[in-house]
Amino acid sequence: MPLVRVHNFSISLDGFGSGEPQSLESPFGHAGQRLHEWMFATSFWDREAGQRGVDAVFAARHELGFGAEIMGANKFGPPGWQDDPDWQGWWGDEPPFHTPTYVLTHRPRPPLEMAGGTTFHFLDASPAEAIAVAREAAGDLDVRLGGGASVVRDFVAAGLVDHLHLVVVPIVLGRGARLWDGLEALEDTFDIESVSSPSGVTHLTFTKRG
Amino acid sequence: MPLVRVHNFSISLDGFGSGEPQSLESPFGHAGQRLHEWMFATSFWDREAGQRGVDAVFAARHELGFGAEIMGANKFGPPGWQDDPDWQGWWGDEPPFHTPTYVLTHRPRPPLEMAGGTTFHFLDASPAEAIAVAREAAGDLDVRLGGGASVVRDFVAAGLVDHLHLVVVPIVLGRGARLWDGLEALEDTFDIESVSSPSGVTHLTFTKRG
Ligand SMILES: NC(=O)c1ccc[n+]([C@@H]2O[C@H](COP(=O)([O-])OP(=O)(O)OC[C@H]3O[C@@H](n4cnc5c(N)ncnc54)[C@H](OP(=O)(O)O)[C@@H]3O)[C@@H](O)[C@H]2O)c1
Ligand SMILES: NC(=O)c1ccc[n+]([C@@H]2O[C@H](COP(=O)([O-])OP(=O)(O)OC[C@H]3O[C@@H](n4cnc5c(N)ncnc54)[C@H](OP(=O)(O)O)[C@@H]3O)[C@@H](O)[C@H]2O)c1
Repeated sequence: MPLVRVHNFSISLDGFGSGEPQSLESPFGHAGQRLHEWMFATSFWDREAGQRGVDAVFAARHELGFGAEIMGANKFGPPGWQDDPDWQGWWGDEPPFHTPTYVLTHRPRPPLEMAGGTTFHFLDASPAEAIAVAREAAGDLDVRLGGGASVVRDFVAAGLVDHLHLVVVPIVLGRGARLWDGLEALEDTFDIESVSSPSGVTHLTFTKRG
Repeated sequence: MPLVRVHNFSISLDGFGSGEPQSLESPFGHAGQRLHEWMFATSFWDREAGQRGVDAVFAARHELGFGAEIMGANKFGPPGWQDDPDWQGWWGDEPPFHTPTYVLTHRPRPPLEMAGGTTFHFLDASPAEAIAVAREAAGDLDVRLGGGASVVRDFVAAGLVDHLHLVVVPIVLGRGARLWDGLEALEDTFDIESVSSPSGVTHLTFTKRG
């Protein structure tokens, strides 16, 4: 059975997956780029000059074996994107997903076919329904749950996620979208491992027990 | 200048230093002993049979070079201890502090001299005032800030702490006393390092910049 996986999801020490307020100029609010600097320094992001250590090994898992992605409305665009019929996401003409990509929103619109194999589908559906649709599209491959924090939280709380890779960045954001709320006792259903990297981040893996 | 240090302060992945409700039977609430199992397994706790690896190396710092401790009322006793004139703390006749120990409470009582060098003083004072009193008592030695979460948070927010050693335990408590609230941008004033241990916990050190 293919898996539902979260990869490279970065949080601050206090558990925020983005700062605030989110906007067109600052998609991550006051967090700026700090949640993802560890990733920009790797060969996953910069094939030529990026480093190939622990962080790169973890980061590369983001691309391997996926047949579909699910993301939240706030990952797809800044607040209000639903009012802009021309908004096509942050990623330009050829988004890095290369699969069907399901955007959860209470204001769905027709599908958007992009270059390179990404088609955005807009879905107003429960987490379980969204997983069923994405699994169907992914076939034998896994489904990536791309974030943000509120979507990851909802799907984990509903018992729909098999594996998570979180990256704890040594900053204290204080405010934003918090991952942990409502996830009490996650250790009862997941094996949790932790590896710190010389870059200063700590990689956490959560693997669902059989 | 002697330092103000926090050691062996354990938190869950979501940042709670204790569960809830705190009581005589369950001092850590629904967290039970899970926040400190890493420590019980070390030679710091069990001189004979305890392990002597990474966790023990960190844990031992708790005892070295301190001339006084400051703690919060909720570390000293369960809710309502102030109504019990016979309450002498959790630690029996010979508490493990062996120094003057200042208990912050809005209902102070006369000092309590215990065996082994610990005297409990009860103090209704601001964090800065409490530090001044404890520094005076500690002389050339450091002052340990013993917790709980709300006291650590208040003293860090007031800029009074030089060094913290936190231990992140891979459980999600969901509720209790949360450490991080109000500590936004801690990375601006502290160098932060992270080391994961084979036991599953991650040690974090925060060292105030010069
Ligand atoms: N830290 C990381 O690694 C990482 C990864 C990805 C994204 N991010 C960042 O995280 C932020 C977004 O996170 P977030 O928690 O604010 O929001 P989010 O999870 O991206 O999106 C939440 C929104 O999606 C829609 N939605 C969610 N579930 C739905 C359902 N079942 N049916 C219909 N619509 C549904 C709702 O929007 P509407 O009601 O408005 O339609 C909801 O407000 C952005 O800043 C993004 O860049 C961070
Ligand atoms: N995770 C760890 O490693 C660790 C370490 C130590 C303790 N703990 C646990 O943490 C829990 C206690 O933490 P907590 O955050 O609930 O409480 P706490 O920090 O121990 O105590 C807070 C209380 O101390 C008093 N207080 C604080 N500042 C004061 C001031 N400036 N002046 C006068 N009184 C002041 C107030 O009590 P009143 O108003 O009632 O007087 C306040 O409610 C306990 O379960 C304890 O066992 C955990």
